[in-house]
Amino acid sequence: MKLFALVALFAAVYQPVAALWPQPRGLTAGASTLKLASNFQITVSGSTPTDLHDAVTRTQQFLTKDKLGRLVVGRGSGDAKNFAAAKSLSKLTISLEKGATPQPIATEAQKAPEDRVEEYTLTVPSDGSGATLTAKTTLGLLRGLTTFGQLWYDYDGTTYALETPLTIKDSPAYPYRGFMLDTARTFFPVADIKRTLDAMSWVKLNQFHWHIVDSQSFPLQIPGFTDLAAKGAYSAYQQYSPKDVSDIVAYAGARGIDVMVEIDTPGHTSAIASSHPEYIACPGATPWATYANEPPAGQLRLADDNVSKYIANLFTAVTQMFPSKLFSTGGDELNTKCYEIDAPTQASLKKAGKTLEQALDSFTQTTHNALKAKGKTPVVWEEMVLSHNVTLSTKDTRVLVWISSDNVKAVAEKGYKLIHAASDYFYLDCGHGAWVGAFPNGNSWCDPFKTWQHAYSFNPTANLTAAESKLVLGGQHLLWAEQSGPENLDDTVWPRAASSAELFWTGPGLNVSAALPRLHDVSYRFRHRGVKTISLQPEWCALRPGACDLTA
Amino acid sequence: MKLFALVALFAAVYQPVAALWPQPRGLTAGASTLKLASNFQITVSGSTPTDLHDAVTRTQQFLTKDKLGRLVVGRGSGDAKNFAAAKSLSKLTISLEKGATPQPIATEAQKAPEDRVEEYTLTVPSDGSGATLTAKTTLGLLRGLTTFGQLWYDYDGTTYALETPLTIKDSPAYPYRGFMLDTARTFFPVADIKRTLDAMSWVKLNQFHWHIVDSQSFPLQIPGFTDLAAKGAYSAYQQYSPKDVSDIVAYAGARGIDVMVEIDTPGHTSAIASSHPEYIACPGATPWATYANEPPAGQLRLADDNVSKYIANLFTAVTQMFPSKLFSTGGDELNTKCYEIDAPTQASLKKAGKTLEQALDSFTQTTHNALKAKGKTPVVWEEMVLSHNVTLSTKDTRVLVWISSDNVKAVAEKGYKLIHAASDYFYLDCGHGAWVGAFPNGNSWCDPFKTWQHAYSFNPTANLTAAESKLVLGGQHLLWAEQSGPENLDDTVWPRAASSAELFWTGPGLNVSAALPRLHDVSYRFRHRGVKTISLQPEWCALRPGACDLTA
Repeated sequence: MKLFALVALFAAVYQPVAALWPQPRGLTAGASTLKLASNFQITVSGSTPTDLHDAVTRTQQFLTKDKLGRLVVGRGSGDAKNFAAAKSLSKLTISLEKGATPQPIATEAQKAPEDRVEEYTLTVPSDGSGATLTAKTTLGLLRGLTTFGQLWYDYDGTTYALETPLTIKDSPAYPYRGFMLDTARTFFPVADIKRTLDAMSWVKLNQFHWHIVDSQSFPLQIPGFTDLAAKGAYSAYQQYSPKDVSDIVAYAGARGIDVMVEIDTPGHTSAIASSHPEYIACPGATPWATYANEPPAGQLRLADDNVSKYIANLFTAVTQMFPSKLFSTGGDELNTKCYEIDAPTQASLKKAGKTLEQALDSFTQTTHNALKAKGKTPVVWEEMVLSHNVTLSTKDTRVLVWISSDNVKAVAEKGYKLIHAASDYFYLDCGHGAWVGAFPNGNSWCDPFKTWQHAYSFNPTANLTAAESKLVLGGQHLLWAEQSGPENLDDTVWPRAASSAELFWTGPGLNVSAALPRLHDVSYRFRHRGVKTISLQPEWCALRPGACDLTA
Repeated sequence: MKLFALVALFAAVYQPVAALWPQPRGLTAGASTLKLASNFQITVSGSTPTDLHDAVTRTQQFLTKDKLGRLVVGRGSGDAKNFAAAKSLSKLTISLEKGATPQPIATEAQKAPEDRVEEYTLTVPSDGSGATLTAKTTLGLLRGLTTFGQLWYDYDGTTYALETPLTIKDSPAYPYRGFMLDTARTFFPVADIKRTLDAMSWVKLNQFHWHIVDSQSFPLQIPGFTDLAAKGAYSAYQQYSPKDVSDIVAYAGARGIDVMVEIDTPGHTSAIASSHPEYIACPGATPWATYANEPPAGQLRLADDNVSKYIANLFTAVTQMFPSKLFSTGGDELNTKCYEIDAPTQASLKKAGKTLEQALDSFTQTTHNALKAKGKTPVVWEEMVLSHNVTLSTKDTRVLVWISSDNVKAVAEKGYKLIHAASDYFYLDCGHGAWVGAFPNGNSWCDPFKTWQHAYSFNPTANLTAAESKLVLGGQHLLWAEQSGPENLDDTVWPRAASSAELFWTGPGLNVSAALPRLHDVSYRFRHRGVKTISLQPEWCALRPGACDLTA
């Protein structure tokens, strides 16, 4: 019995909550085995929006198709001795709390981060009586279904959970838990984006930040502005049609994910020169490194009122495609030398009697006002509030901190709500050498590679006062696509991005050593569901929690 | 016309030989376009071994299925104006030189590296007359077919080559051009290995170094020794049967690739303890870092004569599965502390009156003699000749340099033929953080990531005398699988490993900037053939040779 207690303690240390990821914030668990009955059914009590019905169907499918063997030596053979005595669960009843109005999951997910309600309560008895899931919203029900779907293992045809009875009362620490994908440097087909959205939903991420266009290509077909993609995309096959976008938005919404589009301006816009050369300063100027952070050079002629109006109209058109309350207008890496050599910009500035900074302010007001008129909240990269004198209201603007986590404090001190996206923790593309040519010994600018352990150890409120800490909306991993594409998407992102998913759901102060066995579980389950996660360790280690720790 | 000349010069600088990789060592090329006739056929003159016939069929299939658009803006639309005037090629005749005996490609490929004959001569006229390919061996013909298959692009249904007429007289700078895969830390299904062999053959690599077993798992089923895999593999589904091995050996051979197996001894053998605990010292000793470089600890009891005999017999059995002349016996990372705590080893040493080094020498003689009796040449990691007092003949031993390229000189000074496999240039797994647990800020031991540019710039004879330089057999990239698996195999290996393929075929002194456009070509063509290469640059750069150079 002593030995058993020791084993149980070991299990408790290394598998705090079976294999739930992100770890729920409130949980009590027993040590009984529970089988899933062959006639197991999920019943929705009350009216059921279509996307909730679909989520139930997906959960049912995972329960029968995951067939994940537990990650221990024998893959669960040692659990089989408990099957005879274990009760069978035949029912999960899910329902909204009294007084709640059933709305589609997508509707709940597309609210402003601060207004999203994701909490849920899940109870799984071990005596064979029915399990229950309740929440205030369909979005909360989805989160609970996701948790329920992670409880089960397969051994020799028996689907079973350990650690029942189980009661979970859960809600996220932060309302914005995202992932950013750049589809401009390299094009990603719709199927890759949908698979990524699936994976995001399995770890309860709720925000897809779609960096959809950039200087290298403009793959977005915008009604009324179709020349941009027709001439600025890599090819006719590398574009997102309005139908593609609405498919992706709906697919994401049904999985509890909001899609924030980014039309990066006024820099990162060289691709617009393909259709509107009159709007772009210094297109293709050389040497590119003088006029842009990446080739090709080219930025919007922000001092030209026609350009401001064009972008305002463009933004307005794009708002029709994305129901999100958030809309990123970019604002990073503006290069002033590009404007110095651009005669039209210099003429515009002179005529208006403005400095470049003043012109940038006017451009920003015009374009942001177009968004606000449509009820959107502009989101900007940090330079717009740290490097430029742009008048932005703290109430109506959100800030993405990317250059360094050291800059979080300065953004918070200015009173802006902020999103963690710092290159020194969350950039997934770092550490693979330089991609620019003729630079044989060049490094990746954001060396070294950012490990999952590093992101997982991040403190979202480091150096912040209590008041400043409240400004943190959450954070995200990001994949820039200079050296990435559909070929390495899954293994570059997963399971690494699961580390920030747990950090921003469960909250900081996490333990890397304790997390590793659960992260293996995430990784193996993802593979069973078709997402090609990278190996974190030899399988020998994955099957022996703790045995490959440096201290073991 | 001036402008055209400039364009042609530009093309000449950036595409020295269309998109051939590795670049042939002797070539003259014109500037005419040549179309492939719809009834194009490859004819073999003389008797045709089955695997040569199959190689011809594969080449024909690539010609119709690659459909690679040229990597320029418009993807070849600018080439179409030349189609009307271009002649059509309807025939390639391939034949062995007079007096040559037609043998299967596999037979030629499985010879000792020094005896492999891979030279070929390819002539492609631009006037519509037939192309010819001749060689001394079927292996040479295969290499020529591979070159021929890289000449062609597709635009709008027309398959065409640029830069004809073309005459290539080619042969490799080094006879050993390899790739190593570790299938023990993570298991790779047969299909992944075959796809890797395909890719290797497309860049004329000729040696698959199969690090098939290790301390973590023993996936190789060996007739007469089946308990090793039955108890030491990860599972029944993660094993290579004799049929799998013979399939892989045949598949490789038909593609001009020899398979060198590695049974790493006396270290890296903990997996043998699963079936033969009596043969293993310090199995699972903790803390593992004291007794092994990786968990789990455990090494052969090399001072025990029964163990030497067992391994000699095991080696003999394995030689039956692999026709290669080369057989790697490993010999890296032997941990002496493991033996210090192993009472049976200490007793054996005492009884025999030997030091550990003397026992290692005896073990090595016994096991190597078993290989020599079967006509095999033992291959060892560098420690066996640099760190231990083992008697190895320079004539009958080959040495893999892995710890550092700085050690090449010492190996050459001792007179051993050597293979470049240095971690500081050719390890594909470096730079992704630590994989051992409880090491949150740990780095990859072989940081940083090794870029293709770095490997490509390697000098195989740096610091060597002319005589020592002759000892260099060639080299290879390597993929260790602590943090790799089928999920990231393609994008981790390709196109990076193509850099050493060209280095050791074409010879050193290569230019990274000039190579990049051709390497893009390799990468895109691989994708068309089903190998998921990683993106080297944004597609914008891939379509504009030189435009993303740091100096552009």
